[in-house]
Amino acid sequence: MPSISEKGKHMPASPIRKLVPYAEAAKKRGTHVIHLNIGQPDIKTPKVALDAVRNHNIEVLAYSMTEGSETYREKIAAYYAKKDIQVTAKDIIVTTGGSEALSFAMGTIMDTDDEIIIPEPFYANYNGFATAMGVNVVPIASSIESNFALPPISDFEKLISEKTKAILICNPGNPTGYLYSKEEIQQLAALVKKHNLFLIADEVYREFAYEGRQHYSILQEEGLENNAIVVDSVSKRYSMCGARIGCLVSKNNEVVQTALKFAQARLSPPTFAQIASEAALETPQSYFDEVIAEYASRRDILIAELRKLEGVKVAVPQGAFYCVVELPVVDADDFAQWLLEKFEMEGDTVMVAPAAGFYATPGLGKNQIRIAYVLEKDQLVKAVQILGKALKQYNN
Amino acid sequence: MPSISEKGKHMPASPIRKLVPYAEAAKKRGTHVIHLNIGQPDIKTPKVALDAVRNHNIEVLAYSMTEGSETYREKIAAYYAKKDIQVTAKDIIVTTGGSEALSFAMGTIMDTDDEIIIPEPFYANYNGFATAMGVNVVPIASSIESNFALPPISDFEKLISEKTKAILICNPGNPTGYLYSKEEIQQLAALVKKHNLFLIADEVYREFAYEGRQHYSILQEEGLENNAIVVDSVSKRYSMCGARIGCLVSKNNEVVQTALKFAQARLSPPTFAQIASEAALETPQSYFDEVIAEYASRRDILIAELRKLEGVKVAVPQGAFYCVVELPVVDADDFAQWLLEKFEMEGDTVMVAPAAGFYATPGLGKNQIRIAYVLEKDQLVKAVQILGKALKQYNN
Ligand SMILES: Cc1ncc(COP(=O)(O)O)c(C=O)c1O
Ligand SMILES: Cc1ncc(COP(=O)(O)O)c(C=O)c1O
Repeated sequence: MPSISEKGKHMPASPIRKLVPYAEAAKKRGTHVIHLNIGQPDIKTPKVALDAVRNHNIEVLAYSMTEGSETYREKIAAYYAKKDIQVTAKDIIVTTGGSEALSFAMGTIMDTDDEIIIPEPFYANYNGFATAMGVNVVPIASSIESNFALPPISDFEKLISEKTKAILICNPGNPTGYLYSKEEIQQLAALVKKHNLFLIADEVYREFAYEGRQHYSILQEEGLENNAIVVDSVSKRYSMCGARIGCLVSKNNEVVQTALKFAQARLSPPTFAQIASEAALETPQSYFDEVIAEYASRRDILIAELRKLEGVKVAVPQGAFYCVVELPVVDADDFAQWLLEKFEMEGDTVMVAPAAGFYATPGLGKNQIRIAYVLEKDQLVKAVQILGKALKQYNN
Repeated sequence: MPSISEKGKHMPASPIRKLVPYAEAAKKRGTHVIHLNIGQPDIKTPKVALDAVRNHNIEVLAYSMTEGSETYREKIAAYYAKKDIQVTAKDIIVTTGGSEALSFAMGTIMDTDDEIIIPEPFYANYNGFATAMGVNVVPIASSIESNFALPPISDFEKLISEKTKAILICNPGNPTGYLYSKEEIQQLAALVKKHNLFLIADEVYREFAYEGRQHYSILQEEGLENNAIVVDSVSKRYSMCGARIGCLVSKNNEVVQTALKFAQARLSPPTFAQIASEAALETPQSYFDEVIAEYASRRDILIAELRKLEGVKVAVPQGAFYCVVELPVVDADDFAQWLLEKFEMEGDTVMVAPAAGFYATPGLGKNQIRIAYVLEKDQLVKAVQILGKALKQYNN
């Protein structure tokens, strides 16, 4: 029997994959599982986007342009202009989700065994893309004590080697919810320019910033044009994860032209999804105001409830819709499984994402979990009550 | 300025990319360009597929299952059963086009610098996926003299090294139109089993076989279960290239489980497109009968017309909708450019795909072009007349 690749063997499975059978078994037993583990928003997709697809008049569903349709890219550029980001259609490649933009970015700037520095904890699938591309992730620890702020630049400098090609940040962060300040972005900008590196910013949660905070994009930073590559996505912004549309944006034309060659190999991004995404750009501001207000109040309630629990530490998220929580347990993996296997409170239990899967350094985050607040408030309150009761019982 | 990757530098651009500006200039001059160069069918997409999307009642456009929805995969398995291919839903991963299935297949079975043997000429994007994955294509020449039949097995054996992990065939072939016989598949099956290799078959043109010929899938070959990986797609079958849905199929569970990890990293295939593709499976047989009849008669006319031209050699395609044509020119690249830059016949010219881009061996195919017969018959006839006149003028 022919054998699979080393790459394939090392491809990380999803951090919650192991828990899925336990969740299924719990549901079979009749236990209701509240999912704190998923990043799939429950918010409705803007009607204007769904209607555009309903009203399509396609007769031959043809390949679109490899880089995405001209009109759509022009409208994306106009969207960025409103965010004080000056780019044109030719700086944009429409991709199949932010996911594909991440792959293209890595392929464009890194060869086998090259290194990319990523503050951890980070979006677990960065590992998957890196493994698929044959490049190595070099983690740099950020800490719950500082709310997962940017690690000191001197820590970065210690990790930079001949093989280092880029620094990748997620802003605001999944799983941390941390929103980098303009000063932090400027420190990174100086660093990558000094060492001639790329700075990739995954800004798919750009729209989700709380307490009136402003997102500062790396594309706003003057003088960083040649180094900056942004990964973006409609998935969370318009609650349309199933569309599979994102984009790669850079003012570095060589980067865009090279990424375009990766894009050409896979022909084009999905057509229906582009129709929906183009229409989504007409979503009224009131939609976002409501959505942000909803997430903000969920966040407030979640944090307030979590703070009532003994021995629990919470990193207060300033963006996105996740937070990392430190629990008074030794092994959150075991606790997460126990919640599904052994525990219930009045017929309910919760599923959480153990945070170890978001760290690349073995041993880190073992007592942490990630909570996504993409649930109604009453469900969040109940979920935290369950967690509180469960922790007491588990620790006995 | 940070530099792009070697990979990125070596990513092949599309074989017709260089010609695009000349085609645009011709159009600007008012010349009508007949496109013989594209693989985008002009056939209408089945109404049942387009309507399913029109009638969607989605409120939250959520991620689908990573491997594709359960019902869709079950229906795909039922489709295969009708083609005498016995697989179940769990042998199938729904992908974003056959393109993504090709990437997943390569990643699943090959590491950096591993080798994959591919009969040339072949679908040019195999080069792109191989380059992106850091693996090497080892071409084995097939010849227009034998209609691009399978090269002798002894030629394959000469190329097999420690690094060889797989053989990739396209059946029926793009650009060759060649349909492998059952005997050829069986020879390949014996070869891959003997050397413990995978056999990947790109069967996206399965449905397009002419003169009553039967497509024989590698999944029909008993005893090949552990070695066989099929790449499939709805793009051409239902003329819905813009959907971006395909699948990877294998009875080798380790392969499927590993490919699934690559799939998890990118979350899910597009949701609207899956709705369309699932509905497309209800397309009545009469649709295919008509489409095949249409392509068959286009093929007949195209071949008949081409045979009238002096010094032109045609490989008669038995499947797909392409044919490779040898011209009495030294450099088909130059001729193709000349057609767009310097020639017209009553206001018309043609754009062809120079075949050199479909060969990996430098120098091969330089006097060949690929013609796609995805145009109405009168356009095909006119295009060949133009070619004939142009060849005379060019050769003076
Ligand atoms: C930080 C981050 N980046 C990228 C993605 C990829 O999203 P998509 O491919 O749906 O755009 C996600 C999805 O959860 C994410 O959390
Ligand atoms: C031989 C072959 N394989 C795969 C593909 C990829 O098609 P898709 O990604 O649209 O399924 C094509 C498209 O032209 C093709 O010709």
